[in-house]
Amino acid sequence: MSSSNPGRTILASTIAKKYVQEVQDDVSKLGRSPKLVGFLANTDPAAQMYADWTGKTAESLGFTYELRVVNKEELEEAIINANEDDKVDGIMVYFPVFGDRQDQYLQQVVSLEKDVEGLNHKYIQNMYHNVRFLDSEEHQKSILPCTPLAIVKILEYLGVYNTLLAYGNRLYGKQIVVVNRSEIVGRPLAALLANDGATVYSVDITGIQKFTRGEGLKLSRHKVEDVDLTLEQVSQNADVIVTGVPSATYKFPNEFVKDGAVVVNFSSEKNFNANVKEKASLYVPMIGKVTIAMLLRNLLRLVNNKTSEV
Amino acid sequence: MSSSNPGRTILASTIAKKYVQEVQDDVSKLGRSPKLVGFLANTDPAAQMYADWTGKTAESLGFTYELRVVNKEELEEAIINANEDDKVDGIMVYFPVFGDRQDQYLQQVVSLEKDVEGLNHKYIQNMYHNVRFLDSEEHQKSILPCTPLAIVKILEYLGVYNTLLAYGNRLYGKQIVVVNRSEIVGRPLAALLANDGATVYSVDITGIQKFTRGEGLKLSRHKVEDVDLTLEQVSQNADVIVTGVPSATYKFPNEFVKDGAVVVNFSSEKNFNANVKEKASLYVPMIGKVTIAMLLRNLLRLVNNKTSEV
Repeated sequence: MSSSNPGRTILASTIAKKYVQEVQDDVSKLGRSPKLVGFLANTDPAAQMYADWTGKTAESLGFTYELRVVNKEELEEAIINANEDDKVDGIMVYFPVFGDRQDQYLQQVVSLEKDVEGLNHKYIQNMYHNVRFLDSEEHQKSILPCTPLAIVKILEYLGVYNTLLAYGNRLYGKQIVVVNRSEIVGRPLAALLANDGATVYSVDITGIQKFTRGEGLKLSRHKVEDVDLTLEQVSQNADVIVTGVPSATYKFPNEFVKDGAVVVNFSSEKNFNANVKEKASLYVPMIGKVTIAMLLRNLLRLVNNKTSEV
Repeated sequence: MSSSNPGRTILASTIAKKYVQEVQDDVSKLGRSPKLVGFLANTDPAAQMYADWTGKTAESLGFTYELRVVNKEELEEAIINANEDDKVDGIMVYFPVFGDRQDQYLQQVVSLEKDVEGLNHKYIQNMYHNVRFLDSEEHQKSILPCTPLAIVKILEYLGVYNTLLAYGNRLYGKQIVVVNRSEIVGRPLAALLANDGATVYSVDITGIQKFTRGEGLKLSRHKVEDVDLTLEQVSQNADVIVTGVPSATYKFPNEFVKDGAVVVNFSSEKNFNANVKEKASLYVPMIGKVTIAMLLRNLLRLVNNKTSEV
């Protein structure tokens, strides 16, 4: 560590370790090998790599993993078959397939009971409203979308969450910039962080929105406002910057990073410049291994929900 | 009618007449006034006009209509309140609000039991798979998305459907071009037409897809293939051209219209040139009034489903 470059890189594998162990212990307690089926219907090398990693990790921890490579036109029927197959415990789809709204349609075809990614409308709506269980008896846990959940766990590991504060306030006073407002990562993440007390600036090409925990609302949920601020303005006081821009050329401007900020990139492309650690204190360049740990954790919850059905 | 301009314009009001009458009769038989709530959270003049029309038509036929103008940030909570209000029979939202995926999220917040637009994932998935009821006893009808349904009814009126053929084959041999592949109109419409036997070319900026009724599939549903054809190639033999491009400047090229083709525009903008009737035999410039009739017809089905619950 030199004075000109004080920042540290923290690898996802380091952060994932605790969750990987937890998942492995839970599988061995379960006494059977839950089966995860992944559907690959695109030729994106990043998706193929992620599928390989998922398979290797899953198998090494005692799960059964099966990758089904299908034509995109056959994907819907293939998902329905897996929904109906009692031997399949969890299903995930490597997106994008068609892109945009048709993918959102396909994601909803995965049955609630097998959706390890936590992208079913019911799970997402529960997340936005801080509803943590599916049933009023609170036996069946609602699933959180796995990438946003992974980022929350990463921020916990990095000490961004203040454990001296009560749950729900542990990000109180923190300012966070999230560059991505997709329905599967950016927007749910902004909501999760706002629900924990942070002020979150959610950035995409259409503008910047500010997410805070609303007050006095009947529904316990975050509040969103459009703000007329620039990326530079919202970044200069940001304690945390999270990026997820799916572009090889996009780089978050180094000069907007506050000295000592925590920076996390969840894109499969490198969204930060190589010298970001001249400013950032902690830098997480990739998060895939934590996401996979969350995916398997979600799978165990689904298995548990099935046995908790009333 | 001159020989240089043989085509006729058919107004939506003419086509709607039969359905309007049917809906009015059914409301009077019902003996109470079903309540429809519309949510307007944008400043789009086309949405405001459509809301006014819906209100006027609904009230004139014996329904109760209430337009709730809300801030887009309050829309989700407002929908949830209407879901929980026993006095509300049906709910519709005037989109776009946020645009894109977040609107798709909001649409799913509307409860299945009150979704007059037929855009709930369950209804759309049923439509794609030709599933016509919600329950195995076949008491509760699945709702069809109202704009695609309106276009089907228009094509029936115009004689495109051959009533001498069996249901499911009534578009056999017909070639149809649909310029729009949105998840709420273009794609469901292509599927509905393909399910009735047509060959449908679905056109959007990403390319052209061919929808046909698949054969030998376990699921009774349409088949989709990407095709390497131009708009001119797919149009030159098209019996029907349906457009829905939300742009004031887009015009479907007149020279691509086959002599005698039937052309229907469902965009709030005029997608055909004024002289389209030099080629087309029948031209439906707008469809709103038929769509509203279908919306109210769907509302009556929802009311009926509620009383048919087992």
